[in-house]
Amino acid sequence: MTSYLKHDEWLIIEEGFNPENNRASESILSLGNGKMGQRANFEEAYSGDTLQGNYIAGVYYPDKTRVGWWKVGYPEYFAKVLNAANWIGIDVKINDKTLDLAKCRILSFRRTLNMKKGYLERSFTAELPGGEKVTVESIRFLSIVMPEIGAIQYSVKPVNFNGKITITPYIDLDVRNEDANYGEQFWEEVNRETGNGEGYILGKTKKLDFTVCTGMKFNLLKNGKPIRYDITRNEREKYLENSCSIHLQQEEILTIFKYAVNLTSLDYRPGELMHEAEQVLKIAFTIGFENLLAEHTKAWIMKWDDSDIRIGGDVAAQQGIRFNIFHLNQTYTGEDERLNIGPKGFTGEKYGGSTYWDTEAFVFPFYLCTTNPDVGKKLLLYRYKHLGKAIENAQKLGFKNGAALYPMVTMNGEECHNEWEITFEEIHRNGAIAYAIYSYVRHTGDYKYLEDYGLEVLMAISRFWSQRVNFSEPKQKYVILGVTGPNEYENNVNNNWYTNTIAAWTLDYTMGHIHSLRNSNPQRFRELAAKLNFDFEEETSLWRDIVDNLYFPYDEEGQIFLQQDGYLDKEQSLAEEIDPNQRPINQHWSWDRILRSPFIKQADVLHGIYFFEERYDKETIRRNFNFYEPRTVHESSLSACIHSILAARIGDIDTAYNLYLRTARLDLDDYNQEVAEGLHITSMGGTWMAVVEGFGGMRIADGTIRFNPLIPDQWEFYSFNVRFKGNLLNVKVNHEVIEIRNRSNATIPVNLYDQEYLLEGGDDLVVHRKK
Amino acid sequence: MTSYLKHDEWLIIEEGFNPENNRASESILSLGNGKMGQRANFEEAYSGDTLQGNYIAGVYYPDKTRVGWWKVGYPEYFAKVLNAANWIGIDVKINDKTLDLAKCRILSFRRTLNMKKGYLERSFTAELPGGEKVTVESIRFLSIVMPEIGAIQYSVKPVNFNGKITITPYIDLDVRNEDANYGEQFWEEVNRETGNGEGYILGKTKKLDFTVCTGMKFNLLKNGKPIRYDITRNEREKYLENSCSIHLQQEEILTIFKYAVNLTSLDYRPGELMHEAEQVLKIAFTIGFENLLAEHTKAWIMKWDDSDIRIGGDVAAQQGIRFNIFHLNQTYTGEDERLNIGPKGFTGEKYGGSTYWDTEAFVFPFYLCTTNPDVGKKLLLYRYKHLGKAIENAQKLGFKNGAALYPMVTMNGEECHNEWEITFEEIHRNGAIAYAIYSYVRHTGDYKYLEDYGLEVLMAISRFWSQRVNFSEPKQKYVILGVTGPNEYENNVNNNWYTNTIAAWTLDYTMGHIHSLRNSNPQRFRELAAKLNFDFEEETSLWRDIVDNLYFPYDEEGQIFLQQDGYLDKEQSLAEEIDPNQRPINQHWSWDRILRSPFIKQADVLHGIYFFEERYDKETIRRNFNFYEPRTVHESSLSACIHSILAARIGDIDTAYNLYLRTARLDLDDYNQEVAEGLHITSMGGTWMAVVEGFGGMRIADGTIRFNPLIPDQWEFYSFNVRFKGNLLNVKVNHEVIEIRNRSNATIPVNLYDQEYLLEGGDDLVVHRKK
Repeated sequence: MTSYLKHDEWLIIEEGFNPENNRASESILSLGNGKMGQRANFEEAYSGDTLQGNYIAGVYYPDKTRVGWWKVGYPEYFAKVLNAANWIGIDVKINDKTLDLAKCRILSFRRTLNMKKGYLERSFTAELPGGEKVTVESIRFLSIVMPEIGAIQYSVKPVNFNGKITITPYIDLDVRNEDANYGEQFWEEVNRETGNGEGYILGKTKKLDFTVCTGMKFNLLKNGKPIRYDITRNEREKYLENSCSIHLQQEEILTIFKYAVNLTSLDYRPGELMHEAEQVLKIAFTIGFENLLAEHTKAWIMKWDDSDIRIGGDVAAQQGIRFNIFHLNQTYTGEDERLNIGPKGFTGEKYGGSTYWDTEAFVFPFYLCTTNPDVGKKLLLYRYKHLGKAIENAQKLGFKNGAALYPMVTMNGEECHNEWEITFEEIHRNGAIAYAIYSYVRHTGDYKYLEDYGLEVLMAISRFWSQRVNFSEPKQKYVILGVTGPNEYENNVNNNWYTNTIAAWTLDYTMGHIHSLRNSNPQRFRELAAKLNFDFEEETSLWRDIVDNLYFPYDEEGQIFLQQDGYLDKEQSLAEEIDPNQRPINQHWSWDRILRSPFIKQADVLHGIYFFEERYDKETIRRNFNFYEPRTVHESSLSACIHSILAARIGDIDTAYNLYLRTARLDLDDYNQEVAEGLHITSMGGTWMAVVEGFGGMRIADGTIRFNPLIPDQWEFYSFNVRFKGNLLNVKVNHEVIEIRNRSNATIPVNLYDQEYLLEGGDDLVVHRKK
Repeated sequence: MTSYLKHDEWLIIEEGFNPENNRASESILSLGNGKMGQRANFEEAYSGDTLQGNYIAGVYYPDKTRVGWWKVGYPEYFAKVLNAANWIGIDVKINDKTLDLAKCRILSFRRTLNMKKGYLERSFTAELPGGEKVTVESIRFLSIVMPEIGAIQYSVKPVNFNGKITITPYIDLDVRNEDANYGEQFWEEVNRETGNGEGYILGKTKKLDFTVCTGMKFNLLKNGKPIRYDITRNEREKYLENSCSIHLQQEEILTIFKYAVNLTSLDYRPGELMHEAEQVLKIAFTIGFENLLAEHTKAWIMKWDDSDIRIGGDVAAQQGIRFNIFHLNQTYTGEDERLNIGPKGFTGEKYGGSTYWDTEAFVFPFYLCTTNPDVGKKLLLYRYKHLGKAIENAQKLGFKNGAALYPMVTMNGEECHNEWEITFEEIHRNGAIAYAIYSYVRHTGDYKYLEDYGLEVLMAISRFWSQRVNFSEPKQKYVILGVTGPNEYENNVNNNWYTNTIAAWTLDYTMGHIHSLRNSNPQRFRELAAKLNFDFEEETSLWRDIVDNLYFPYDEEGQIFLQQDGYLDKEQSLAEEIDPNQRPINQHWSWDRILRSPFIKQADVLHGIYFFEERYDKETIRRNFNFYEPRTVHESSLSACIHSILAARIGDIDTAYNLYLRTARLDLDDYNQEVAEGLHITSMGGTWMAVVEGFGGMRIADGTIRFNPLIPDQWEFYSFNVRFKGNLLNVKVNHEVIEIRNRSNATIPVNLYDQEYLLEGGDDLVVHRKK
């Protein structure tokens, strides 16, 4: 755990520069607008440790798999988000000497992410080796109003000298991915154009030919006023710059406004990209920095109005939750169903920017509850469109008859991952994809989606489960052998309780909707059955048999659901008994030692209980929580949130609060010593869930929305918004009362502490808090 | 299965050239002499498909590990045998056109491995694109009398023309490994010297600085007589040649004798290598090809006298067993305890030439029974010398107090392999290393070895087992969780019966010898205990408790030992039910599918029964054999031999014979479609065992040697030699009688069909065969 950032309700502030934290700060202070994103790299040259990162949504590279020992079925490529053209670059020379903070004495430094308004701000005063002191101030943002545009205001002021300042804005496509499997570069230049005050590079990715035009346009002011200056143009392959030298007196200020554009062949014909980029950039340039920023800020304030969570009396918690919400909103906007949410979003290379089960299991609820229903639907359609590939994927593994296994990691629907215990065995991901359909329908009431798309996915997944089980003679039950559950610290186990639970549920849920559709819309059912070659009698009777006779490991003595067969054969000990120097164990122990230990990486049985909480009484939940929580090391970012929610459910508010802090400030306080690699974007959805579903006790059941709020002692109040069937509710909780405000026009039935209320549009409900 | 080679008792004959079999033939016809080895590549240029391979024992390269997803504890390097200098090369030009069989019409072609005399012979007549027909004849061998020397006789005869023949012998160190992880070359040139008729390249391997001098010296004859010729010398880095052009009339014969030497820094000071190479080569040159070959042949005939197995009436079987014995004797001679036996010997790159448990489990008995006891001892000392590294290896995985885990794959004692399920979990290898000590002592009576070296290894391994078990509360037994047994088609299983069996045996055997030593030589015991910091009371009482309370999975209903916990939960089916198009399954099925299937790669429970056969009555062996054999796909070369031995044990001679054929002609008939990669050298020891222990029923028990011979109907007779306590017995079996001849001077107690006989030196015992 490392805490060097200041606590503030709306800002993330790095005060003073420590080079060893630079990669971490670059991650934490990242910018994004759904279409592109970037790490908080410096504009000017920096020879110290840095991970340069500019990413463009949907533009990826299928890097040749690197594997020690090949196994049949491994994918040949790992799709990874590419480091794209660096467009923020502004080199600065002071009397012909490069300004490089790694080589200066830094007199002051402050880098701030303004989450309320969505921009990155930086200021510093540095002394060059020759004694010249300069002050630099910059503001940078990626517009959420014009999401192809980014803009920078960057000013330099000589503090103790008169001299020549050379400003060199550039675009550099000569970039690399640190994680390239074979050290290759992924971009080729197609075209390059430089003018005075502007420049464009048209680049194409190898193999898949994604084409991207990155352009820049800039102007300079001295002391806030236009000036005349000469420009020297330099270029080489994949690089272009404009260089301008200006003489300044002490305390004079030179300011550059640099505007950049990124257009891609996802949205334009490649041949038109260069021209279109010029047009879009011209518009932005005409609007100007101040107006662009004002529009951008206004849009952010509207986003906050929908999705903010307020926490009173606990600045660290307030900052933490806003940090999570801010990055979720920076990463995905739901405007393009070809996109999804990588575990690190636009903040680093790790996990390749690809889609994991994280989307459905951890971030889907956030978008479902804070944006219009169309966004959730787009996330579902993403998987619907990959159904064909999921069926192919299952075929490769020997499954038949339209069974689908969605990939563990994907960009275009094909599997990318190559560890057999994950790629082939972590099949529970199929369940989360089914569960997201259920959540969406439950939340929006959009049953039409099931008819049109959802049921087809559910049936293909059900077919997979029905082939993946086998009948055990000794147990006289169906079993699911050889899986890896959500707890990846167990591999190739039999009867993972979570996996069996989600499999049986999928079969049952799918059958329910097949029956419904058969009754309500027999025509559509016949169409679907014909399309899928679905044998209703035969398939559903097998499915029913599996649901009725699936084996679930259980410990009679402790009355707990067992994570898998044989879990209790392990030497039982608790996470608190691990030598702190050996934590996290995944950085200290060999894999076999981890596998043999009883320690759990992330919620597994408890995740199953979380998904289907309504099935279990509080005592059952408590018994399982009390057994599993002390054995869980939470070395996945996706763990603490689920435990926090269940702790709240059983009324253990202190544990819920501690676990919440761990998830909310995971990156800000760098619990797992890895934030330098990028942020845990998908776990941020879990943090939101921990407030709304944990403390707020929000559940959707029987068509109504329910709340059972708790509040930690450390907080004065908290409030959140939630959309339900298209309507918006605001919930505010303090130690005395719960206030629920219907922010829509419709009348909404609300259940608070098991009491039903009908809330008319605009009305407030105020109820004393139950203690 | 591919059978294109002719059956012959002493020769392996490839008649007619099929380029698609070339890599396979190159493997099968490989030469070796313990110090070096090479594939049966052509001397002249060949632009078709070929795997060039020259290997030098003990000279390896630690290639940087290639891995998809790193895990703590993985080794950073994979040590692999290097492709060394090509010294066989003799380019031939006919009227300035290169002779290249890939570009000629081949009128006849024959490549023969003479196993009796240990050389490779080749003859062909080819027509060049210009119409010139030439006949080439060559003989090549690696001397087992002067093991640093190789020699070639190579002659060219114009069949239908008069013209210029250019002969260019060369040395080429500009070679690569096909399996290089990052495409790197492993050799650097240190020095190079060329003279007329000779040349030397001194090369050094990267990283480890193994230095090798490869030299050549040659002379030419025309029609068997010396001639004068000019030499043109050419060289570049890592390459040198001498080129000689001679005019020949039709039917005249030009012959080159090329002698080569390889000396290494393992045996000489690097600075002296070049000079020493010249000296050694000069001696060989002076002795001359014919004399060198005569000495070599004589030595081979003596080797055969010790180790031959004769089979009457079945040429395929006779050829098969000799092929196995021949390659074993080519690969390892027991002269250097720094060397060991790679799974592919000197016949290919696969498995990197490193040492596996194969050595102890499969080839150790062959050397023990057919060579002097010193050879077996050298193989044990190899592991003894690696004990320190094995202790370090165990420490890396969290074990303490001098526990040793020998590496799965190694060259210098360090682990090379990087699949967690093998590297960390295939711990049964430790057991085979302990078992080899037991075999050696049982076979030689050399208890002194235990005192001096063996016990130290056994104690370190026992310490490992005692820490690797844990106590299961539900079972109230010790268990061994998270292992991979010999059957690698199961990973991360609990209580693999074989592993548990060998673990308990090791503990028990070690304790037995600790007690003996404590009584017989208390002084040595105290020394050892002090050296190892061994707490006799505490450690042995824990070991005893483990031996007495270790869990063994068992199926009460079928009364069979269960391969591991939960094996019967699998959908049971038999190997014969697999679609033949899907065989071998490891080339057709994804890994999870293999893991979930009941199919067994290689003997696992049955290997345990084989090791400790005396514990089980025939009915128990039969039940287990009848259960496991039909589920075993034998996709390891190490499987069929063990099954064959057990089939013989239970009197199922037909099954024993079929399984024997599979192992004996595995490479000759290319059962697993992979002989192109190299031969299965270590499984060849298993073939030898299948004859001697299977059909011959040889066992060592209670200090005597026992035989229970069977004979397949297909054979008229078979005979083999076996050394026991330094004495040599010859056993001959036909359908009527068993004849055992004591080839030594001492009196030997022999047990035949459970009857004891005392055989005096030189005596024959003739007994009617039991049917």
